[in-house]
Amino acid sequence: MNAEKIPDIIIGRLPVYLRALQRMADNGIKTTSSQELGEHVGISAAQIRKDISQFGEFGKQGTGYSIAYLLDKLREILKVDRIWDVALVGAGDMGHALARYQGFTNRGFRIVAIFDSDKTKVGQKIDEFVVEDAEKIPERLKSAGVKIAMLTVPATSAQSVADKLIQAGVKAILNYAPISLNVPNNVKVQYIDPSTHLQRMTYYL
Amino acid sequence: MNAEKIPDIIIGRLPVYLRALQRMADNGIKTTSSQELGEHVGISAAQIRKDISQFGEFGKQGTGYSIAYLLDKLREILKVDRIWDVALVGAGDMGHALARYQGFTNRGFRIVAIFDSDKTKVGQKIDEFVVEDAEKIPERLKSAGVKIAMLTVPATSAQSVADKLIQAGVKAILNYAPISLNVPNNVKVQYIDPSTHLQRMTYYL
Repeated sequence: MNAEKIPDIIIGRLPVYLRALQRMADNGIKTTSSQELGEHVGISAAQIRKDISQFGEFGKQGTGYSIAYLLDKLREILKVDRIWDVALVGAGDMGHALARYQGFTNRGFRIVAIFDSDKTKVGQKIDEFVVEDAEKIPERLKSAGVKIAMLTVPATSAQSVADKLIQAGVKAILNYAPISLNVPNNVKVQYIDPSTHLQRMTYYL
Repeated sequence: MNAEKIPDIIIGRLPVYLRALQRMADNGIKTTSSQELGEHVGISAAQIRKDISQFGEFGKQGTGYSIAYLLDKLREILKVDRIWDVALVGAGDMGHALARYQGFTNRGFRIVAIFDSDKTKVGQKIDEFVVEDAEKIPERLKSAGVKIAMLTVPATSAQSVADKLIQAGVKAILNYAPISLNVPNNVKVQYIDPSTHLQRMTYYL
């Protein structure tokens, strides 16, 4: 297995498989088939078998996949067999919602710090967090070795905050600001922009 | 031009071009090239030219694209040359953040109703909205002709709410619940799940 050779589109489907398998496990299900998994995620059984076989032989002809085993393998492949520290920048409504979101920890992530450049927000409490001054991003993230950040700042400041995060050692940014970011090749960005997602569907209406 | 024949992956890039072009227009820029647009969105100039040419000849060799004209055309193609009414189901933290989000109206959408099945939330005010009982989804949406919904309910109730929305005539769902939805072929779903997006990046760390 050579990680560099797996197409990104396949990597993008693995978290969806992982989520569905985790849900089956939570419901007490022990084994599954590519057919059954496919029905849960809306992807063909053949595609699922092909995607998973990129990483080895995890299923048995006739008996299917052991869910616990496949979960372990997928977590290992996606490197979420550990908990990643995540910095959140932007303590507005979306930042608040993410700070309170319960769906990170059991999927490999925990928010460890929340920053904002608005001095009126600095010191504000969001549940167990205290909003910190965005000026402290470099020292705080470098010393803690934080590699992942979520960006919920306005579009106008997103690039400058991203630059600061990257200087502080961040290698993966989940960007909620409605703007494309320019980042070096060794930094990954994923975008969450509800209007973009909606516009992708209106075409078909 | 035959809309059915354009690959979905191309449709998915158009909102990103639209967003970048709108930003250029807001900054007073009148014309652009595929090279310049490509630098903004991180997509090659050749890909952009190829994507846009699927819909006609909108640029001129040597002078590039008129931003205003291309904006009009992209809005027309994506059918966001109008304002779509959107229903929001789920008045939790994420629902609150979306209800207050300022980035819908100028991109073709407006939230017209917010629902929750939690009776303690029904009647609650979120800015100018009053949270309505989820039981009213069928009558409210059918009479208003709402075709688009955003789902910010827990995973456990997402499928049943989606079923109800589809029965009420909804054809496009932006799903924030961390679960894949089973929907008929004529209904589109887009997913926003921060953990899935993060897991797609940790693979590369």
